[in-house]
Amino acid sequence: MYVINYKERGETPVELAGSKNMTVRWLIGLNTGAKTYAMRHFEIKPGGIIPLHTHEEEHEIFVLEGEAAVLGGEEGMVAKKDDVVFVPSNLSHGYDNTKGKKSFCFICCIPLLPTSDTQ
Amino acid sequence: MYVINYKERGETPVELAGSKNMTVRWLIGLNTGAKTYAMRHFEIKPGGIIPLHTHEEEHEIFVLEGEAAVLGGEEGMVAKKDDVVFVPSNLSHGYDNTKGKKSFCFICCIPLLPTSDTQ
Repeated sequence: MYVINYKERGETPVELAGSKNMTVRWLIGLNTGAKTYAMRHFEIKPGGIIPLHTHEEEHEIFVLEGEAAVLGGEEGMVAKKDDVVFVPSNLSHGYDNTKGKKSFCFICCIPLLPTSDTQ
Repeated sequence: MYVINYKERGETPVELAGSKNMTVRWLIGLNTGAKTYAMRHFEIKPGGIIPLHTHEEEHEIFVLEGEAAVLGGEEGMVAKKDDVVFVPSNLSHGYDNTKGKKSFCFICCIPLLPTSDTQ
């Protein structure tokens, strides 16, 4: 068992093509105890975006602060502080904070599949 | 894909023996899309506690607000807002907010095992 502040985990840019002003911290991953799913912290700064992309891993998300447009869902879909977002496997999705004035921060869990790019 | 405020999920008391002033909301569970792991929201109000207990499911936790003593770890272990807590499988653990002045709220993910009591 351990307790750490999330900022103790290294912050790295998200490298997906078309992403901008977005970072990830692997809070609990394969190297830090995770067995079947991982927990990550993402920040999309004002002006930032992660464009539509698709993968096998479903997402379970909790929004910590800010607000962003959710791409790939219903027209006008928005996620904000205290919202829960579920993205099924293989569904195209993205988050757009290009019009935001504050960071959009969220916890995002994914399963650790044999094909997952993880830490 | 969906987005909901976490308060849209029903809040029920935690029924583990010895628990006090603690509620759970199943944010994403078997009935709401989860495949391999579930996301829950817990609140332990001031004066509340969940005593030491053990199960096969590991926990990946992110603390949203408040502060509580973490039982079962090192002496004096505390978790507070912005902390990440990892509890391995079959390790005795609990959270004590009996001395707290505000609610201790956290996101807690668990794997969905064949034996899991889930929603």
